[in-house]
Parts: sequence; structure tokens; C-alpha cells
Amino acid sequence: MQDTSTPPLQGLTILDLSRVLAGPYCTMILAQQGARVIKVEIPETGDDSRAFGPFVNGKSLYFSSINYDKKSIALNLKQPADREIFEKLLGIADVLVENYRPGTMEKLGYGWDTLHANYPNLIYGAASGFGDFGPYSRQAAYDMVVQGMGGVMSMTGQPGAPPTRVGVSIGDMTAALYLSIGILGAIYKRSQGGGAMKVDVAMLDCQLSLLEDAIPAYLSLGEVAQPQGSRHPEITPFQVFTTQDSNIVIAAGNDHLFSLLTQVLERPDLLENPDYKTNALRHAHVDVLQADIEGALQNRSTQQWIEALNAAGVPCGPVNTIAEVVKDPQVAARHMIVSIADPVIGNLQVAGNPIKLSSVSERMEHQAPPELDGDRDAILALLNGKD
Amino acid sequence: MQDTSTPPLQGLTILDLSRVLAGPYCTMILAQQGARVIKVEIPETGDDSRAFGPFVNGKSLYFSSINYDKKSIALNLKQPADREIFEKLLGIADVLVENYRPGTMEKLGYGWDTLHANYPNLIYGAASGFGDFGPYSRQAAYDMVVQGMGGVMSMTGQPGAPPTRVGVSIGDMTAALYLSIGILGAIYKRSQGGGAMKVDVAMLDCQLSLLEDAIPAYLSLGEVAQPQGSRHPEITPFQVFTTQDSNIVIAAGNDHLFSLLTQVLERPDLLENPDYKTNALRHAHVDVLQADIEGALQNRSTQQWIEALNAAGVPCGPVNTIAEVVKDPQVAARHMIVSIADPVIGNLQVAGNPIKLSSVSERMEHQAPPELDGDRDAILALLNGKD
Repeated sequence: MQDTSTPPLQGLTILDLSRVLAGPYCTMILAQQGARVIKVEIPETGDDSRAFGPFVNGKSLYFSSINYDKKSIALNLKQPADREIFEKLLGIADVLVENYRPGTMEKLGYGWDTLHANYPNLIYGAASGFGDFGPYSRQAAYDMVVQGMGGVMSMTGQPGAPPTRVGVSIGDMTAALYLSIGILGAIYKRSQGGGAMKVDVAMLDCQLSLLEDAIPAYLSLGEVAQPQGSRHPEITPFQVFTTQDSNIVIAAGNDHLFSLLTQVLERPDLLENPDYKTNALRHAHVDVLQADIEGALQNRSTQQWIEALNAAGVPCGPVNTIAEVVKDPQVAARHMIVSIADPVIGNLQVAGNPIKLSSVSERMEHQAPPELDGDRDAILALLNGKD
Repeated sequence: MQDTSTPPLQGLTILDLSRVLAGPYCTMILAQQGARVIKVEIPETGDDSRAFGPFVNGKSLYFSSINYDKKSIALNLKQPADREIFEKLLGIADVLVENYRPGTMEKLGYGWDTLHANYPNLIYGAASGFGDFGPYSRQAAYDMVVQGMGGVMSMTGQPGAPPTRVGVSIGDMTAALYLSIGILGAIYKRSQGGGAMKVDVAMLDCQLSLLEDAIPAYLSLGEVAQPQGSRHPEITPFQVFTTQDSNIVIAAGNDHLFSLLTQVLERPDLLENPDYKTNALRHAHVDVLQADIEGALQNRSTQQWIEALNAAGVPCGPVNTIAEVVKDPQVAARHMIVSIADPVIGNLQVAGNPIKLSSVSERMEHQAPPELDGDRDAILALLNGKD
């Protein structure tokens, strides 16, 4: 019987060959759930993202933001002595994670068929641009490429403006989330006597999973989704508006909320206007309605409107800059920014764990992002059964 | 010993009280991994998204895109007879999923403490705007609200343009992905004798998890992330460019790829230009470099450039509309659009399962999105032990 208060993945070991973002973001999530993550890095340079700015005292904040609570060993998988160590690590690992282009692991002699024959309990999780099969399988992809190919970019931006990237790397990160789900399903299946398997996640595939109803809307009705600025494609008013001093998001998703909104705005005439009687009518008159609402919003600040709208129960919020996000009291209450004493950076502050569990206490102590090869002795000791 | 070829979650039952997007997207993912999902819907209207357009023969494509492979029963949880059925369903369920505002389940008499006392093996997964605790806990939130509050909107868009929403609902969908991960961790922990727990995921928290290095870049260096249009914040050239006929994404992420790019463009002078010697220099001169590259791109079409760049190994791709995405041969090879015979819609085509498993065959047959209460008899039969 396991202790109910231990993190869900405690006792599991992840061997992590991945670099940059999709793989490391996946293994960070697994580390947050309690797994031990051992990064196996290339000697001399390590994970490519160690060279990505910005830096503090020469240590990458990009690398640090997604590699805390992991350990590092440097191994050259083309050298026999290092391959021997790697193979011993495979023997104690539950999961191998990598995000090379398909074919690379086979060239190293560590393709799935070989690994599965030699380590029948080892689960293998791979993220790549296009996955293990299909005409583009061997092509390289970056986040931007799949954001463009997968359709998300065609739905993002101001109408008529140039193509706009989602400001964060959702191409990589969505693949990391799906890879985490695939690996966890495989871990559960193995626990039920169902054997080990390889999980193959493609960044492009994951982009399609984000399209909501855009695929059937096109294939059944011929409607091609378009960028809408900040507006929702179906619901009105549901967008960003300007106030006296800045911007505000108001999401009045149904007739009741629209009625409450007109009360807070002290504009009962909007509720009586026949053009605004239903969501469909409001949507058809969205430009005029936006002007009406923004006219009413000009006499108070965003903060004042947020207080009034929240008091009435109308969903709303600010468009926060990062400087504002980090000061938000809800973010603090949820422990969503964690402080880590890093020997190089000093007080490193990064995003925390968004999965809150009733039986597991929030983890307040974290290991600093590892120096390259910084845990060699501890990792080699693991191989000798010393935990 | 389980069959290695069965889906990972086969044999698990999810009782799904959720509506609209975050909860239903989570339970769709669990269904794709093989779980049985029973939607418990409000009589008469059901899941709110049944009323969201666009429609085919009166059936919502929005609802259909995230509710296939699930079953439906309509229950009024304020009526004793229906509560009795619901409680029997709780007795056979492994996981309960809901996305009400915190406090709603307690009002129904089904809060976590009550459920855990009566159904000690039941795992409980909840997604809400702000989570179970903190000053905003009881406030409503929609996708737009957390996109604005969490900082992603402040990093998305063209410089100087109005705030821009990510064109898909990543506020809801990222929470659904994290909730799936939390539930799967809890399922594994329970399988190890670690008991059942509640998983509490907040949409706002998940937005912070997407910010890459923006939090430490601000808190360590005072750098506030800004919208960059289609450009990468650190790497150049890595953006959308115009060609003779449309747009192209080119992601030349290092010196070697930049060198290959100049060869394909037949512009060796760009490689020799001292302003473009390193990524840092290219980034400092990004406007001029964009003009140089676009000048060279004007004499061929996007498709011609993609062929030439792929042949040279430079990561690139089109900015596809949805009409183009659905015709992509890689999408077809990966079975990322599935066809479902729906009795109302006809041939429903929606996004498929992005998790590909070595031991589990791709599922080619799917159940149509359920009619409200459409599976009552089959679900009641389950309670009598008839599967």
C-alpha cells in the first residue's frame, strides 16, 4: 500500500534524451508529478537551449524555466564506455523520452524494436514534428512551421493583417502535453500487465486537435475559419474593449449576462435595442455594438470596470502584461510562481505546477536546473543501487 | 495479464458532468485512450454547447467535434429518482469529471469530501477558471478572460496593434490537457494502492505554464515580453515572409541553416554581409534582413520555395487555411481526420487522436456524438451488470 500523500509518479524514473522545448516540457510535467528525471546530454554543449538567451550570469533562463527538478549526466552515445553507462540507465528506467527527428535513434542503435527486445518493460515516448510515419516524417519542424501548417496561424490575428504567430510556442507545448498523456496511459497499462509500448506524438497532429469545430465547419459547410482579432467567432459581446485608461476583456456569453452588462454600463437602451435582442443579432451588429459599449466604457478605468462587472457577475478581466501577471493575488495563492535558489542565477522564479491534488501537499522545495553533467556521481551511484 | 493491443484506458469508466469545452475536451482525450465516457446531461437542453453553431440539420458541429465516442444520459440532480441513478453510476465509475464553478458540486451534495467518504475509490477531476482556492476561486471565467489575465494575449499579435486573442481556445484546452494528465497520474497512483484523490486544475494557472521564460525574464532582468507579429522573440530569421503568391514560414534556427537558406535563395551576399554573421546580429537587423529575404522570394511561388527549401533541409512550411490543412497528405497518413457516420449530420469529419501507440491499432470505427439521453437504456443496463 502506497502512502496517499506521495506524488503520483514517485518511484518512476524517466531517462530524458530530449532537447530544447517539446521533450523537456514533457519531462518537466512528469517531474512535477513526482518522477525522477535524468537528462542525458551531449558532452561540452548539452541541451541546445543552454545557449538560448536571455542569460543571468551566463545561465540560460530559457533552459532554466523548463529544466528544474531534473538531474544531468553528459554521455557521448557514440563512445562505447558512455553507451555502457547509458544501457545500464536504460535498465533502471521506466520511460525513455526523446525528441529527435525520426530515424536518429535507429542510427544510434537505440530504435524501438531494439530497445523493446532488450528492455521489455521500458516505455518509449517520442515527440517529433511529423511523427514516425507519413510523407513528411523525416523532415525537421519547428514550432512556427507547425503553427503555420496546422491552421492555427490562419485563425489568429487581426482581420486583414499579416499572419500572426501565437505568442507562445504552442506547437511544441501542445505536443509535450499530449506526449505526457500518452506516456501516463502507457504507464498505467504496463501496471495492469499490458506490457510496454512506444508513444509517437507529432507536433502537426496536435495542432489539428486544437481546431475545435473548424474541420467539420469547413468539410460540412464550406466555412473557412478566419482570424477575428480578439473577438469570439460565434458569441457577442465577447472580446477586448478599450476603457478610459487601457483595455478590458468582457465575455457576456448569453442573454442574461448581456442584460447584466447593460445594467453595469447604465445603458438600458442597449438591452431594448432590437438589433441586440439575441446573440445572433448582436453578432450580426458586432461593429456597432462594440462602438456602443466602448462609448459607455470611456468614463471609468479598467480597474473600476472590473470591480463593477465582477460585483454583477459578468465575466471580465484585464489584458495583463507579464509584469502584471506576476503580481496577481490569485497567481500567488495558487503557488503558480515558485522560487528556486540557483547557485548561478540566485533567486530563480519560474512557473509552478498547475495540477493541484487533494492528498498531495504543494511542493515548496525545488532543485535548481542542473549544470551540465552536474549529477554524474549521484546518477552512477543509482546504478549501484544507492538511491 | 492484459492484452497488449487494447487501448490503455480500456475498462475504466468516466462519469462526465462537464459542459462546453474544458471538461468535454478532457473526457474526449480519455475516450480516445479507451475509457468509457458517460455524459450526464441536464434534461431538455443538455450540454450548453448543443446550442452552439454552426449546425447541420440542427445538430451542433461544435458539440460534435468534442463529444464523439461518448454516451449520454439525462439526469436532473435535484430530483431524488435521478439522484439515485446518479449515485449508482458513481458506484461503478472510476473517475468523475466536472467543470462547474467551485462550490456548485457542494450545493448539489456531491462535494469532494462527501463523495470521497461514500466512494473511496472514486477519482475526481475538476477544471474551473481559477481553481478551488484563492481570492478569485468563485468567479466565472471564460477562455478569453484567462487568455487576457494570464499574459498570453500580451505576447500575441502585431506590434502596436490591438490585443489579439489566440485564434483557438487555448485557455480551455490547455486546462483540459493538464486535467487529463492529473487524472491519469491519479489513476496510476490508485493502481499502486495510493488511494483516490481530487485533481483541481485552474485555467489561469495553465496559462502561466505556457509562458516559457517570460516570468524569469521579467523577474530577473525586468524584460516584459511583447507581441512580435510572426517573429520569434530570440531567433532570426524565424518568421512568416511573403512570396510571389502568398506567405511562407521559414525557420532558419542557426548559422548552418541560415547558410543553407542563402544558397537556396541564390543570395551568397547575405551570408557575407557582416550584419548577418551571427544570430544576435541578424536579430539586431531583422527589419533589413526581412526585406532582403522577401526581395529574393518574390520570383517564385510558395510551393516552389517549399520544395527547394525542403530539398536543402531548411525548416519551412505554408500558412495553411483550414481548407488546405484538410487536404494535407501528412494529415491523411496520420489519420488525423476521422469520418463518423452520424445519423443526423451524415458524414461527420473531425480531428482524430494524436497519440499513436506501437501496440494499439488506430481505431477506425467511432460512435457518433450522442443525442441527449440517447444511451439511457444501455447505461441503465450497465448498472445491472450488463456490459
